[in-house]
Amino acid sequence: MTDLQGNLLVAQSGGPTAVINASVAGVIQEAGRHECIGEIYGGLNGILGILNEDIIDLNEEKSGTIQRLRHTPGAALGTVRYKVDFKGRPEKAAQDIQRLFEVFAAHDIRYFIYAGGNDSQDTAHKIHEEAVRRGYPLRVIGVPKTIDNDLPLTDHCPGYGSVIKYNAATVMEIGTDVGSMATEEGSCCVVEVMGRGAGWIAAGTALARRKTDDPPHITLVPEIPFVEGPFLEKVREVVGRLRCCCVVVGEGLKDSSGEEIGADKTRLDAFGHPVLSGAADRLADLIQARLGLKTRTVKLGYAQRAAAHFASATDIEEAFATGVAAVKAAVEGQSGFMVTLVRQSDEPYRWTTGLAPLGEIANQEHFIPRDWMSEDGFLPNERFRAYAKPLIQGELRLPTEDGLPLMGALSKVRVEKKLPPRVA
Amino acid sequence: MTDLQGNLLVAQSGGPTAVINASVAGVIQEAGRHECIGEIYGGLNGILGILNEDIIDLNEEKSGTIQRLRHTPGAALGTVRYKVDFKGRPEKAAQDIQRLFEVFAAHDIRYFIYAGGNDSQDTAHKIHEEAVRRGYPLRVIGVPKTIDNDLPLTDHCPGYGSVIKYNAATVMEIGTDVGSMATEEGSCCVVEVMGRGAGWIAAGTALARRKTDDPPHITLVPEIPFVEGPFLEKVREVVGRLRCCCVVVGEGLKDSSGEEIGADKTRLDAFGHPVLSGAADRLADLIQARLGLKTRTVKLGYAQRAAAHFASATDIEEAFATGVAAVKAAVEGQSGFMVTLVRQSDEPYRWTTGLAPLGEIANQEHFIPRDWMSEDGFLPNERFRAYAKPLIQGELRLPTEDGLPLMGALSKVRVEKKLPPRVA
Repeated sequence: MTDLQGNLLVAQSGGPTAVINASVAGVIQEAGRHECIGEIYGGLNGILGILNEDIIDLNEEKSGTIQRLRHTPGAALGTVRYKVDFKGRPEKAAQDIQRLFEVFAAHDIRYFIYAGGNDSQDTAHKIHEEAVRRGYPLRVIGVPKTIDNDLPLTDHCPGYGSVIKYNAATVMEIGTDVGSMATEEGSCCVVEVMGRGAGWIAAGTALARRKTDDPPHITLVPEIPFVEGPFLEKVREVVGRLRCCCVVVGEGLKDSSGEEIGADKTRLDAFGHPVLSGAADRLADLIQARLGLKTRTVKLGYAQRAAAHFASATDIEEAFATGVAAVKAAVEGQSGFMVTLVRQSDEPYRWTTGLAPLGEIANQEHFIPRDWMSEDGFLPNERFRAYAKPLIQGELRLPTEDGLPLMGALSKVRVEKKLPPRVA
Repeated sequence: MTDLQGNLLVAQSGGPTAVINASVAGVIQEAGRHECIGEIYGGLNGILGILNEDIIDLNEEKSGTIQRLRHTPGAALGTVRYKVDFKGRPEKAAQDIQRLFEVFAAHDIRYFIYAGGNDSQDTAHKIHEEAVRRGYPLRVIGVPKTIDNDLPLTDHCPGYGSVIKYNAATVMEIGTDVGSMATEEGSCCVVEVMGRGAGWIAAGTALARRKTDDPPHITLVPEIPFVEGPFLEKVREVVGRLRCCCVVVGEGLKDSSGEEIGADKTRLDAFGHPVLSGAADRLADLIQARLGLKTRTVKLGYAQRAAAHFASATDIEEAFATGVAAVKAAVEGQSGFMVTLVRQSDEPYRWTTGLAPLGEIANQEHFIPRDWMSEDGFLPNERFRAYAKPLIQGELRLPTEDGLPLMGALSKVRVEKKLPPRVA
């Protein structure tokens, strides 16, 4: 293998996680160790920024800032939900791809590292294929990133451990609070968490259960169709025994016809999916109407994926390692792969990184195996716990200033543009 | 002053906070130091538990458990929103009071410490007056507790510092996340926080602002009537400049007719107040309809008042101190007072405890002074910051087990009942 000399470009895409910047920190610190890599560039706001030639010079950043990225939420490089729309608008997609390669060539980009979820791995795959087609020497490696934990071929995804650590702690705290207020009339609390297609996040809150009657008492996952009767019966049974019931629901919970119970079909996001907002409110209305139980809702929303203040130290370490592994793989001559996390054992927890072909990842969703959930579908079982428990271990020693988190912010020194503006 | 020999009873009331158990820990640890105090009892579920003679022996608890109460959310003794309804049902209230004194006498209660908010201080006041009227030697001291920070005569309330520390960190994290996703089309995020009458909690999130353009960009407090036009204009201005706008709204935000914008009048709580649920959703609908900006909501709900994992060390210390001070005051012969927090200086922050007559506290609400908010009413100013900043200082070294908080749980050894059951 001959060394490929040139510059590296790293970008982030899709919804941020608490640890996506740790992966970027891993990329930057590893890239600095290889002489074949000249400049280390960051593309602002994912693919859209690269199309617009909005590129920054990451070698200009202080090393202290790069260290702080490890516990800074959001996407330090900016992110975007822009999608190169190969299926829907092939001509526009061809234009985008042409422009991307013009930008790569203008800045001598030979290493492209893209951190993102399903859609982003698809984009990375297409770029890899196009580079091969064009004979443009480019090493494309994807870094997994998604709180949803729904990427295939990797044991789990960086970002997932932190979201379930924070959510489980939050459900534990909420459960302690509502449990202490419980009266004979009974009450409910419904906590809505993220997760459109897969219920990994909702199920992960079950780690809060140290004893049989600990909250959450019910976790509803999108993989298992929601049926009113058995659900209400279960709520009634829990309230009868404990006087209050703590329910966690993944936002994408579906009924048996596949309809999302919280969907507001009047609003679509950039990918044409309906905006979900109301699963918890819908369940609360149902419980109140049918069981007459006072029910409060909590909607953690963006707070859960940004909660770096209670991130999992294991997750941060793994996110960083995937960034390092991406650069190593590229330098070693690989292209068209996503870095994976490979579990070697549960207890003690041992892991390493691996590689999986991007073509086998793109647009595939990884769901909770049905036999990792209880027979009635209302709680994950021991198999799930054995899987999820190692991922939330370890706390960050969070640096603070005046009582609040101290975050890293890139100074974002721009790389001079070399091309005429893109025709949008 | 002659020493009053007898037992101490402590109870909690109203919505829990992250530090209400720290106050109980202070009561227990201080009570153990005075020979005039015999048994240390806890009333389960506030006044209701005392009426039912549900009393536990706190001397049976392990001292390690008492230590852990300092960072355990919820109300360790249980709480309740039951109110001795002096105004609405005076005959029932007279029955309740009669029963309370029967319980006090049966268990030789001579010290009664009640931790709660406005309504609870009112109840404590009535009990004190009744003891005087009856000539029953009883020392009644209230311990302030409310995330709402709306009790008068105390500089601030235990529980407030922790809720704004967690909420400000959360808004900082959410703001970093949504800021990194901002696109030219612009977007909004509306975070709903607690606060029915007073906007202390919403305003406290402004501590997240280290620079002019930091989130939150707008904080809406119930004290300042909501007017659509100027609000939408402000959102438009912020989005024009920063591409995204982060709004924090107190759940009790009112329009100029005094109507709560998020009230669901079909549901009332135990005190006859309408259940509030929708201020953020109402604002999101408005922003989307009138400005066409994609808007997501977060509703922290119970999570915020239970977030012991990111409690303020200052708040924990003060909460503990109010419990200690309550016992000291009672032993010194005081009755009919609430412990207050007295600020001696902002910088360096110095404080001590004081006493205020319960009769001057009951059912009074303390609001944010208008001149602590900006002229346009959308953000607190430097006077507010100087007040709130000291209250969030210091982080807890949270004990964890398997990656999640380790909490204290009372074993709740019951005191034998001596009376026939209450006729409800």
